[in-house]
Amino acid sequence: MSERPTRLEVEDLQQNLRDVQEILARLRPADGDVTRPTPPAPRLADLRAKLERLHPADIAEVLEALPLEERLVVWDLVKADRDGEILLEVSDAVRESLIASMDSNELVAAAETLEADEIADLAADLPEQVMQDVIRALPQEERERLRAAMSYEEGSVGALMDFDQVTVREDVTLEAVTRYLRALDELPGQTDQLFVVDREQRLRGTLPLARLIVSNLELAVGQVMVPESVELNPEKRAEDAAQAFERYDLVSAPVTDHFGHLIGRLTVNAVVDYIREKSAETQLAEAGLSKEEDVFAPVWNSFRNRWSWLAINLVTAFIASRVIGAFEGSIEKLVALAALMPIVAGIGGNSGNQTTTMIVRALALGQIQEPYWKKLLAKELGVATMNGVLWGSLLGAVAYMLYGNVALGGVMALAMVLTLLLAALMGVAIPYLRARLGRDPAVGSSVLITACTDSGGFFIFLGLATLFLL
Amino acid sequence: MSERPTRLEVEDLQQNLRDVQEILARLRPADGDVTRPTPPAPRLADLRAKLERLHPADIAEVLEALPLEERLVVWDLVKADRDGEILLEVSDAVRESLIASMDSNELVAAAETLEADEIADLAADLPEQVMQDVIRALPQEERERLRAAMSYEEGSVGALMDFDQVTVREDVTLEAVTRYLRALDELPGQTDQLFVVDREQRLRGTLPLARLIVSNLELAVGQVMVPESVELNPEKRAEDAAQAFERYDLVSAPVTDHFGHLIGRLTVNAVVDYIREKSAETQLAEAGLSKEEDVFAPVWNSFRNRWSWLAINLVTAFIASRVIGAFEGSIEKLVALAALMPIVAGIGGNSGNQTTTMIVRALALGQIQEPYWKKLLAKELGVATMNGVLWGSLLGAVAYMLYGNVALGGVMALAMVLTLLLAALMGVAIPYLRARLGRDPAVGSSVLITACTDSGGFFIFLGLATLFLL
Repeated sequence: MSERPTRLEVEDLQQNLRDVQEILARLRPADGDVTRPTPPAPRLADLRAKLERLHPADIAEVLEALPLEERLVVWDLVKADRDGEILLEVSDAVRESLIASMDSNELVAAAETLEADEIADLAADLPEQVMQDVIRALPQEERERLRAAMSYEEGSVGALMDFDQVTVREDVTLEAVTRYLRALDELPGQTDQLFVVDREQRLRGTLPLARLIVSNLELAVGQVMVPESVELNPEKRAEDAAQAFERYDLVSAPVTDHFGHLIGRLTVNAVVDYIREKSAETQLAEAGLSKEEDVFAPVWNSFRNRWSWLAINLVTAFIASRVIGAFEGSIEKLVALAALMPIVAGIGGNSGNQTTTMIVRALALGQIQEPYWKKLLAKELGVATMNGVLWGSLLGAVAYMLYGNVALGGVMALAMVLTLLLAALMGVAIPYLRARLGRDPAVGSSVLITACTDSGGFFIFLGLATLFLL
Repeated sequence: MSERPTRLEVEDLQQNLRDVQEILARLRPADGDVTRPTPPAPRLADLRAKLERLHPADIAEVLEALPLEERLVVWDLVKADRDGEILLEVSDAVRESLIASMDSNELVAAAETLEADEIADLAADLPEQVMQDVIRALPQEERERLRAAMSYEEGSVGALMDFDQVTVREDVTLEAVTRYLRALDELPGQTDQLFVVDREQRLRGTLPLARLIVSNLELAVGQVMVPESVELNPEKRAEDAAQAFERYDLVSAPVTDHFGHLIGRLTVNAVVDYIREKSAETQLAEAGLSKEEDVFAPVWNSFRNRWSWLAINLVTAFIASRVIGAFEGSIEKLVALAALMPIVAGIGGNSGNQTTTMIVRALALGQIQEPYWKKLLAKELGVATMNGVLWGSLLGAVAYMLYGNVALGGVMALAMVLTLLLAALMGVAIPYLRARLGRDPAVGSSVLITACTDSGGFFIFLGLATLFLL
């Protein structure tokens, strides 16, 4: 465990990266700048020495921040026995680029340095043949664990748990427990409690280290343990487990099957990683990226990651365009409509997104129960009316001033109110329906609501104009 | 500590809420449905008894999910001595509604049950007079701590730290440490290590509990401690600390001043809360909500939370509208332009947002160093060209089929390519410039990029059409 940085001040977090880049820059052939005195030529050995002192997570950070070519130079220098750990730490996109540069033997060797739950995390990125070799090389118990870990869906507790739990029996003394722990030499990371199990591995309670330390060593585990604790089921949503960790300030929690057998544990560091990844995914999905992208990915990879959302956007934009097309006659007669219509649709979209975002979030936190939907809709319609009257009259006045047409101002104001009401209605209805249908209300809600408000906004504005102005 | 739920299965997380709602529903005057047999009337006492068994975090969840009127019924029933803890757990918006229902004496009493760092978290929401009374009632040491905690900026390590660190001296034996801990009876939550300090409270190292347990009790602390550890400065960004926790799987870390004096500690539960809040804020800000909103907030409060972003949106939409206005002559001659222009602008906006989101995220993770910006821009322009050629030719073909005008199809395709190139350029330039100016590149970047692509897209498409078609 020599790798954790020493006396780390937080500002040092990026220092490693700068150091590596500096050495790399000096390794590059000089680009003709002869005015500066040449520094003593560094050798690859310097870089290797630097890398050896770094924590795998820090190496991962360096790799993520380097363009492909330099990334592979650094990757080749990293000691082979740390390959596995580093692959675990890098983002999915960067992992792909690293794995692509390794042959089967290297991959098998890397995977074999890891534990079952860690291999499971890599499994999706490893070639079939490599996984088979890895599985074959594992001892029986580990193989069972790997199979178990891989059987749980992404986003479930089972996919995040590890098997590093330390278990003790109820009837032994704390003295004996202490002796046992000493024999282990080092406790697994994030061990804040031991798990008390019976002969059949059924969970009986937990023994927090803090309690073990302050208790009389002659007492039995059963007398000191906490008999009741937060228990997680491996098939449950990781999001719920994260909420439990957040709410009850947990460091670790036992994972048990339906019969109460202890099968693993979940630690707060796995929860932190999950929360970060999840929030990144949401952010990326909202902007129309299918998954996390390596900043230095080849153009083609980036293109694939982005085209599908652009295609969806194209379809919704095309529909909106056809709505406008239906009113071409009106626009021909009063061309001001063409200039004003995007304002109505744009503000409708923005307002609808505000509603949806708030509701999706409240749904995720379990804050909206069945009986309150109507109340919520009434509130959103109220906010929409206020916004509509305010911005509608303002825009109506502006339209009147620009075009000197009172009726046009009136239509603008009315269209604004109606579009915002539509946005509020759809902003509540879309997440409500998606939740009712058992779908994740977050995915694509922004695209759906914008599609409604664009087409709807154009239709309302141009329709009213056709009715009242022509 | 009786409040943590017993034998919690994760699906029970929402059960409390349902129970409370059921009792509340039966408390409401019957709404005329006489066909059902009336269940035995529950009394407020039942609800009180139910609430008394709940963890403060669970009560907070119940309060957040209830409309205002019922929320205050529940709030009144909660034992006064837990008010403070519950106020800490609820969201800012709900906290406001609860504090508004309390008088000064209740607020002072609630704050007095809390520790200095917790009072600091509430300070912004408490009336001036209440804070003065609370400060006056604190013992000297706590008062100093409160002042210290309040002096750090939001988003800094100092604002998240607590003062529950347990310290020991280097020269005492582990035996003595164990005796000392027993006298404490219970260790503060999330204590995974003790902090070793000298006479002047300078940090010398840390003593992990796991190490204390497995070591010979006759050894001195100095022989067993970890001399080097991750150290945080209270003025540093909480985001950096969060990255350190994530990277090195920490449970707690010491916070020291510039002279190395231990002044507090940061725990992983504070980090988890911070990460969650931060990610919620980003998500809300992107959708144009100024801050987290109470789902059951009065219409007026929601309106205030949302109007400012709508106003900004109005300005950008107005500018785009004026760009269109400048080409009214062209639209009058060829009305198809009005129907096609929103497609160009819309896809430009979507594509620009993809670029910006990816870059903002990579910047936050420190993955983009100065020398690589040009490389990045080249890549984004490459992706834009591919997208432009693909979608541009598709749209050009569609425009030709709809309007039977080859030149119109050509203009559409060319406009698409140019708008996507503009989107890529601005998508890189906006976060780059904001980062160079020392601003947070995340805030408002979506609004800025959309403003550019809307006005720019309309200008490019209508401008090309005017040049080539009329």
